Amino acid sequence: MIVILKKNPEEKQLQNLMAWLKSLNITIHPSEGETHKVLGLVGDTSVVDIDLLRALDIVEDVKRVQEPYKNANRKFHEQDTVIPVGQTTVGGGSFSVIAGPCSIESEEQVCLIATAVKACGATMLRGGAFKPRTSPYAFQGLRDRGLTLLLEAKKLTGLPVVTEIMDLSQLSLFDEVDVIQVGARNMQNFELLKELGHTGKPILIKRGLANTLQELLMSAEYVMAGGNDRVILCERGIRTFETATRNTLDLSAVPMLKRMSHLPVIVDPSHATGLSWMVKPMALAATAAGADGLMIEVHNDPKRALCDGAQSITPEAFRDVMRGVNAILPHAYRPEKEAHA
Amino acid sequence: MIVILKKNPEEKQLQNLMAWLKSLNITIHPSEGETHKVLGLVGDTSVVDIDLLRALDIVEDVKRVQEPYKNANRKFHEQDTVIPVGQTTVGGGSFSVIAGPCSIESEEQVCLIATAVKACGATMLRGGAFKPRTSPYAFQGLRDRGLTLLLEAKKLTGLPVVTEIMDLSQLSLFDEVDVIQVGARNMQNFELLKELGHTGKPILIKRGLANTLQELLMSAEYVMAGGNDRVILCERGIRTFETATRNTLDLSAVPMLKRMSHLPVIVDPSHATGLSWMVKPMALAATAAGADGLMIEVHNDPKRALCDGAQSITPEAFRDVMRGVNAILPHAYRPEKEAHA
Amino acid sequence: MIVILKKNPEEKQLQNLMAWLKSLNITIHPSEGETHKVLGLVGDTSVVDIDLLRALDIVEDVKRVQEPYKNANRKFHEQDTVIPVGQTTVGGGSFSVIAGPCSIESEEQVCLIATAVKACGATMLRGGAFKPRTSPYAFQGLRDRGLTLLLEAKKLTGLPVVTEIMDLSQLSLFDEVDVIQVGARNMQNFELLKELGHTGKPILIKRGLANTLQELLMSAEYVMAGGNDRVILCERGIRTFETATRNTLDLSAVPMLKRMSHLPVIVDPSHATGLSWMVKPMALAATAAGADGLMIEVHNDPKRALCDGAQSITPEAFRDVMRGVNAILPHAYRPEKEAHA
Amino acid sequence: MIVILKKNPEEKQLQNLMAWLKSLNITIHPSEGETHKVLGLVGDTSVVDIDLLRALDIVEDVKRVQEPYKNANRKFHEQDTVIPVGQTTVGGGSFSVIAGPCSIESEEQVCLIATAVKACGATMLRGGAFKPRTSPYAFQGLRDRGLTLLLEAKKLTGLPVVTEIMDLSQLSLFDEVDVIQVGARNMQNFELLKELGHTGKPILIKRGLANTLQELLMSAEYVMAGGNDRVILCERGIRTFETATRNTLDLSAVPMLKRMSHLPVIVDPSHATGLSWMVKPMALAATAAGADGLMIEVHNDPKRALCDGAQSITPEAFRDVMRGVNAILPHAYRPEKEAHA
Repeated sequence: MIVILKKNPEEKQLQNLMAWLKSLNITIHPSEGETHKVLGLVGDTSVVDIDLLRALDIVEDVKRVQEPYKNANRKFHEQDTVIPVGQTTVGGGSFSVIAGPCSIESEEQVCLIATAVKACGATMLRGGAFKPRTSPYAFQGLRDRGLTLLLEAKKLTGLPVVTEIMDLSQLSLFDEVDVIQVGARNMQNFELLKELGHTGKPILIKRGLANTLQELLMSAEYVMAGGNDRVILCERGIRTFETATRNTLDLSAVPMLKRMSHLPVIVDPSHATGLSWMVKPMALAATAAGADGLMIEVHNDPKRALCDGAQSITPEAFRDVMRGVNAILPHAYRPEKEAHA
Repeated sequence: MIVILKKNPEEKQLQNLMAWLKSLNITIHPSEGETHKVLGLVGDTSVVDIDLLRALDIVEDVKRVQEPYKNANRKFHEQDTVIPVGQTTVGGGSFSVIAGPCSIESEEQVCLIATAVKACGATMLRGGAFKPRTSPYAFQGLRDRGLTLLLEAKKLTGLPVVTEIMDLSQLSLFDEVDVIQVGARNMQNFELLKELGHTGKPILIKRGLANTLQELLMSAEYVMAGGNDRVILCERGIRTFETATRNTLDLSAVPMLKRMSHLPVIVDPSHATGLSWMVKPMALAATAAGADGLMIEVHNDPKRALCDGAQSITPEAFRDVMRGVNAILPHAYRPEKEAHA
Repeated sequence: MIVILKKNPEEKQLQNLMAWLKSLNITIHPSEGETHKVLGLVGDTSVVDIDLLRALDIVEDVKRVQEPYKNANRKFHEQDTVIPVGQTTVGGGSFSVIAGPCSIESEEQVCLIATAVKACGATMLRGGAFKPRTSPYAFQGLRDRGLTLLLEAKKLTGLPVVTEIMDLSQLSLFDEVDVIQVGARNMQNFELLKELGHTGKPILIKRGLANTLQELLMSAEYVMAGGNDRVILCERGIRTFETATRNTLDLSAVPMLKRMSHLPVIVDPSHATGLSWMVKPMALAATAAGADGLMIEVHNDPKRALCDGAQSITPEAFRDVMRGVNAILPHAYRPEKEAHA
Repeated sequence: MIVILKKNPEEKQLQNLMAWLKSLNITIHPSEGETHKVLGLVGDTSVVDIDLLRALDIVEDVKRVQEPYKNANRKFHEQDTVIPVGQTTVGGGSFSVIAGPCSIESEEQVCLIATAVKACGATMLRGGAFKPRTSPYAFQGLRDRGLTLLLEAKKLTGLPVVTEIMDLSQLSLFDEVDVIQVGARNMQNFELLKELGHTGKPILIKRGLANTLQELLMSAEYVMAGGNDRVILCERGIRTFETATRNTLDLSAVPMLKRMSHLPVIVDPSHATGLSWMVKPMALAATAAGADGLMIEVHNDPKRALCDGAQSITPEAFRDVMRGVNAILPHAYRPEKEAHA
């Protein structure tokens, strides 16, 4: 951490600052510029409140030298993390396709869709049992029963399943779930993240609607700090001023996250755009940008879907998307093939 | 709900749409413009997926006529809600001042600050026991023990206390807490909101960093739909591109929320700006704009505060803020005094 | 335009509203819902101030039925616009690659880069003579002399040239320029847009940093309303909360703009990301999403570039990007090949 | 400027960096931390491309020590700037109220409003002759003739006038205008700003809809670098995700700008909110926050105003706002009265 002092700091205040820092076991390396004195802080600077330092009378600015995430940082873990999920793996060169309905509605529905997406090449099945809805009057998911139906579809197809947890109290129901999803609105539900760090299960964390990539990695760090390294990052669109699409899919997040971190990065074009006809172009673009996989909503009858029908595609359309993705895949960006990487 | 059809919709598709809407028990009032046919939908339109309607081939656009919040809506509840908290009340003309440390650090600290803010005119005591921190390596609060200390300070001063819940599993510890706070990052933790709707306790909901006022009211609606009408709304700054302040305090939220809803609205200038010297001007401005109260961080030794020291003010500075607020208060905006209200 | 009235509007006010609308030559089609009366307005509603209508006491909301852009609207012009530029064309199936230095620095520099990018397959040459810089103390471009040097490079290579105009007073210098660029910060410089509508030259308009797609199309409309149909739209990244990249490239803008409008859409990955190593993945993704072309900064010595060196790539890297783009191109999204289009 | 190097930088690259910096006449003060080497750069660092430095292989990060604005910086000019405008002054303790119609429509209209606002205490008259409208089909202002009518109202009332310039070519018409306004959409029209720096006239610069305070000050710097110190800053709302108000008025900008700069800061609550009923609460709040003045749209017949009628208030409502503002004014925040200032 680097502290840039104001010009001619008052000596008394400077002594106080130095004493305070030393009391925190920080070693100080002062250096003199022509106009500004600079203090280099060495030691466990995580105990220093950077905002407070910045607010001191004699301090001009403070600069963090190291990223605040450690376990998720590629600097300390060069190789891609590869996460086994059922018979498949996520990350490290695999391309994962998670498909299925937004909400689980009936055994017939989820099994029909599961069979269809498996036939098109999906590697995992998604389906919502607990649904975060902005209105208390909207359909809230089949909850426990939804989970049971999803596991039926898993048994039928052999596809590993991904589904969202909304509260810690639901955790005991997730024993046979293969990947636990943390939704965008829970990305900074720190108590939930901490507890998931003790599960040993793969955790798929969706980026919050107004969160930075560093904040997403800090949420991954919460899980990893508990001892669970199996984190999958998911870009699903951020809030911007644009209203033509529901959110704005940030595809530059894909190569940037893969440079910042060793964790796999997948992209959800369905939630990002909120429009079924945009799933294909954005799936192709995400693939080209080097994503480790896709998460796509598929519904046999989007018009009657109980939630998010507008963004679901039919199994036929999904087959077409998969054809397109497979054509792009051999030509996609791969940082490890780049000279500068 | 109003559905605007595209020019010359295909007859077959139109019949399908009408049949589908009727199957949902919606009555349809068609009307013919010169260029576009319009369908007025009457009935319980909450079962209709507005995004899906919008995505249909023959639909140009869909427009909601009624706000999606009911219990929180001033249209159905003209009078200001007044919430009793201990010996004091929030809303309906009272001016509430909630003050105290960001984090509870020790019995001595919280009691000292509680006594000081009470002497300056605070009506409630705040203090964090469970702390949401973006880094898993940062101080996470004293947790259970912090709550105990806060209740000591309540006993000492008689001030009602406000403190944040981070997870449902903590709820049993909040029995003697007067107001339960839902933090900005949990504003859309719907499972938590639902459960708080069954508590009967006043719930203070902070606006999320990138949430609209309607979304804030929908979160209030979650609590109210469970039967708990005692909701206090809190503006605490939103995320914008500005970096000179930590967040951007949206003071137009104050008169707007009070027009949209009958619930009390308070303002937190400490978190919004992240800078102790800005607490005063923003507290004055919030008061002038017609807020029902303020929430301010006060610490006896901001430089040693375990979190958010940069934005805490000393008891002396708090006394000065209170003097300023009291001078503005008689001249503040009051919608009920306006001719147009 | 549709006006939704509040419940039980005061009769006197309603009469006033109807009289006012009629005085504007608007025909009114009232229709009665169960709870709300709705007025359909027919005629030239562009004379009605929609915000004012919305603010009237008896009005609940107002909804525009038609997009406010006409000339740029695909609904009134189904076929892709194809714009001839020198020996090449933009739009309608061509893939345009505009490459060159951020700033023109010397005849040697611009000619060397022009020759190199032509050899790699660029179809147009870009180069800045007038540079919009946020600081008055930063290099402002070679201005008139820069334009002269750019035209030398055009003569040498035969490549059509694209360069930015910053003020109407510079227009007379642009006679031999093939495409006039309007920068992101001038996207709503309406006087400039109006005048460019009288030039007959292709105009490349960059999306403003916080502007919606509809606003971009309204700026195109300004040019087209003057009689100049040759408008090229350019997505170059928008401002979001993310700081890891300079801006956030919005690739969903590509298929969405092409659905809203018949104008060609190109993508500038250099300015969007501000990082040379991200040009390739974002160029590939933009191609996959169906862009009509790319705009890329190339510099022989990025480290010594007078501006934006950090985002420029070398001619060698550009050759590599072109190879990647050409591999993706046959598999890119093409709306005209889709069943639903 | 401080350059933080990556761990164990390659020696060859480090030598190249040092050589390059020296060739730019920068003196380098290296200092060694435990993990990272740091270079302090001294000299005219404005010639160094900070983004380029940041992108070098061996560089971890770069930190600017000094603000990029000089003339506008309070550090180099402690006293408030006071700008004479006609018989009145702006800044330094005066409270300026600029009122008048959004658009000038007729001599009768502008004279009637001018007389009314003067009677209520306005110190300057505003009125738009050249109007920036997002649609080319909307009313574009009376232009030259509008200016003539505005000057008639000036003659009649003696009020100095403020009006917007949209293009340099209009400058010759502004001879008798007292304050030239640069609109939000032209805040980064650098050619215009440069030229206004040579006029000697007070320039009122409105903050762009998605611009930071530092960017606003850089625009002021453009004018001041040309020798014109008479710059007035105006906060008029920024774009956020909130849709209940047209923009979000950022009142924390008031104390923050006054700390960063010595220039006067006024607030426009009319454009910020877009709603006439919100002008009063926001005017009161802006006053309390320490603004140097207000800019308010007043129209005798808002319902018939040719533009922005929804946000205009009547002369009667303006009188009421002024009463409220005058009551708040003695209690408003004044940094010079604060101990810490």
